[in-house]
Amino acid sequence: MNLILLSGGSGKRLWPLSNDVRSKQFIKFFDDGKGNRESMVQRMYHAIERVDSDANVTIATSKSQISELRNQLGDNIQISLEPCRRDTFPAIALAVCYLHDVEHISEEDSVVVCPVDPYVEDDYFEALKKLYELSQEGKANLTLLGMEPTYPSSKYGYIIPKGKDNISKVSMFKEKPSEEVAKTYIDQGALWNGGIFAFKIGYLLRKAHELIDFKDYQDLFSKYETLEKISFDYAVAEKEDSIQVMRFKGTWVDLGSWNTLTDALGEGSNIGNTLLSEDCKHDHIVNELDIPILCVGVSDVIVAASPEGVLVTNREGSSHIKDYVEKLNTPVMFAEKSWGEYKVIDVTAESITRKIALSKGHHMSYHLHKRRKEVWNIIAGEGSVIIDGVKKHVKAGDVINIDIGKKHTIIAESEHLQIIEVQIGKNIDVGDKVKYDLSKEALEASL
Amino acid sequence: MNLILLSGGSGKRLWPLSNDVRSKQFIKFFDDGKGNRESMVQRMYHAIERVDSDANVTIATSKSQISELRNQLGDNIQISLEPCRRDTFPAIALAVCYLHDVEHISEEDSVVVCPVDPYVEDDYFEALKKLYELSQEGKANLTLLGMEPTYPSSKYGYIIPKGKDNISKVSMFKEKPSEEVAKTYIDQGALWNGGIFAFKIGYLLRKAHELIDFKDYQDLFSKYETLEKISFDYAVAEKEDSIQVMRFKGTWVDLGSWNTLTDALGEGSNIGNTLLSEDCKHDHIVNELDIPILCVGVSDVIVAASPEGVLVTNREGSSHIKDYVEKLNTPVMFAEKSWGEYKVIDVTAESITRKIALSKGHHMSYHLHKRRKEVWNIIAGEGSVIIDGVKKHVKAGDVINIDIGKKHTIIAESEHLQIIEVQIGKNIDVGDKVKYDLSKEALEASL
Repeated sequence: MNLILLSGGSGKRLWPLSNDVRSKQFIKFFDDGKGNRESMVQRMYHAIERVDSDANVTIATSKSQISELRNQLGDNIQISLEPCRRDTFPAIALAVCYLHDVEHISEEDSVVVCPVDPYVEDDYFEALKKLYELSQEGKANLTLLGMEPTYPSSKYGYIIPKGKDNISKVSMFKEKPSEEVAKTYIDQGALWNGGIFAFKIGYLLRKAHELIDFKDYQDLFSKYETLEKISFDYAVAEKEDSIQVMRFKGTWVDLGSWNTLTDALGEGSNIGNTLLSEDCKHDHIVNELDIPILCVGVSDVIVAASPEGVLVTNREGSSHIKDYVEKLNTPVMFAEKSWGEYKVIDVTAESITRKIALSKGHHMSYHLHKRRKEVWNIIAGEGSVIIDGVKKHVKAGDVINIDIGKKHTIIAESEHLQIIEVQIGKNIDVGDKVKYDLSKEALEASL
Repeated sequence: MNLILLSGGSGKRLWPLSNDVRSKQFIKFFDDGKGNRESMVQRMYHAIERVDSDANVTIATSKSQISELRNQLGDNIQISLEPCRRDTFPAIALAVCYLHDVEHISEEDSVVVCPVDPYVEDDYFEALKKLYELSQEGKANLTLLGMEPTYPSSKYGYIIPKGKDNISKVSMFKEKPSEEVAKTYIDQGALWNGGIFAFKIGYLLRKAHELIDFKDYQDLFSKYETLEKISFDYAVAEKEDSIQVMRFKGTWVDLGSWNTLTDALGEGSNIGNTLLSEDCKHDHIVNELDIPILCVGVSDVIVAASPEGVLVTNREGSSHIKDYVEKLNTPVMFAEKSWGEYKVIDVTAESITRKIALSKGHHMSYHLHKRRKEVWNIIAGEGSVIIDGVKKHVKAGDVINIDIGKKHTIIAESEHLQIIEVQIGKNIDVGDKVKYDLSKEALEASL
């Protein structure tokens, strides 16, 4: 099976754990059964490997997620890089061109497209395989997976099938209706639209060329920024007459808010340094801070904490946090990078202190700052710093002064290289960074 | 009026804001009416100054509180220093000897003793003045202030007066009774014992010499550690026949738990970086972290956060946090010192990072460590460091390496001298510190 996983953008609906640079699919919420935590994207990727070890998986995403995807899934994943965000139709068109032009997959072969962030079980991937096979049979141009609704939700789009069979033709799509209208749809056998489609590669290429003027993958990639933002549903599905849908009754939860996420996690699945009194009932605590969270005598609350803030809410309130989080307007206080991760641990008017961890063999970009000096206090591990081309071995206890205007980087030569970085200057901001190429020879010499 | 304020020990009932080194009376909970926050001890001290500007106030406390008392009340306060904690009778005896032998106050003069931590209004201090005058009249050996009970509490001791007059003789004391028994006491006109006593200095000196073998203040001070722990109630009040009590109907709240504290603070008195949705009702948020606390849709919760942890509880739960806090067994993560304050911002196996702020003109002790090096990253202000006797001027952006075994201190020469201190070594602990005298000349030279 060819599978395109759409890894969507960042959002604040799971603040303080998701932020402008960390999308919800990268938060390690789930128990992998071996005592480790895994993220939505890891959970989905590992399930695909388990259910269909031959699956040809391509992740469609933007540049900002590549480091985290590689950190979490390994360096060998196939990625269709989106130069910027342009909604699902351009993203799917680009990924399909990538499959055809770069991976040389035949126009006659089918592909299944699905988002990376619902909470699902193995039966979901069995259904995707079936969807792929149905598409291969060629009885319809589009084959969808429709979710059996559990309640008349106004949050989802609905697929109205022509019959109530397990597989049937689609009569129409309905955008998010009111709850009363949703009820009448459900009585007619309607299904939730989860954004899961299968089609032949040739079909989608023809649609793409109809709607976009481009030659091939490279050409589409280069003009991607000029494309109109448009969803696959709107551009393709709603205009197509030959569509079939397969019903899906298994677990499928849209993890869009703390409300649905805590349902998926289940009772007692508190994460991080937490302590609850015996009389706490139905609480969910997710703590990414180093300090403990203690709950005494409180029930039905959700508490989430990260270096960006602390959220205390309940099931109902958790669906409405977005507006408040926007009011807070907190700066980004932690991020995963291709070379490791950092978190901000102190901020004053003219200084920022960060704790930085680098992965063995990795280095941050070679860069300089025009308005701040930096001090690297190495607190664990060892590595090499390069400052204005001069390399020096460093280890825990060493202190490196980097004056304004000095090009610098550090390369981790052990696991767990950790640094307390103190930035000092006026108007410190992330924009004050000039990147340089670290010559290949210099890097090889130092590794 | 002579007034002895008993400033009691540390406790965890207001964790995470109180801890092993910060007693609840030093937490800045209260609005001083001028846009600043003040602590229980500041609130009480300023009220005394307002009601009786001639009051001769002596604070009875142990060494661990002196820095905070001076930071919060100024350097001119009178302190009766307790070499260690020995309950209220030895503490009062020592303070009274201090008044008599050091401040040369007559045996015929009276003194009022009261704890520093109840929440009271100005009428309380008017009552203390009246108590002092009643004691001066000499109609009883002990004059107590009894609080009109508002409910049959099992948390307080009760004073049973002979009559229901505003001032009457005391028939007996009853230790914390059950609620049913408390009800019968209240029906008889009983009052809560708030630990507020007035007596003539000569009376207490005689009692002290009856129970303790000592010559004078210096002698009592030197043998303080050998004294039995015993409360004033048990040692004196319960054995005394000549006691009168004055009824007090005004505000008097024992701020022993989050429950009573939040009552005293009142609705909407959230402290620190907080944001609540409009539908949050009766919440109390006290945030001493730099990051925001966001509450959405939750009512009747108490949230408190400090560098030591985050507490989420409700009115009922908040009375029972102590056992859980003890289970957490968190290290001390922040403290006020005579020279300023610090907080721990990162901990790893072989490093601790602290943010330190020094007050202008102050310096930390001159000391060395045998198992760790330290790096001082100056992030704001200026001062002088002395390392092994060599003085050097430093300012924001400077980095000072202090190797193992090097004596060191820093003197603040501006407001807001701030340091990110990185400690690196194996088995870092507060015990690894050897203090030295910083010679007077060296200090004067550097100031």
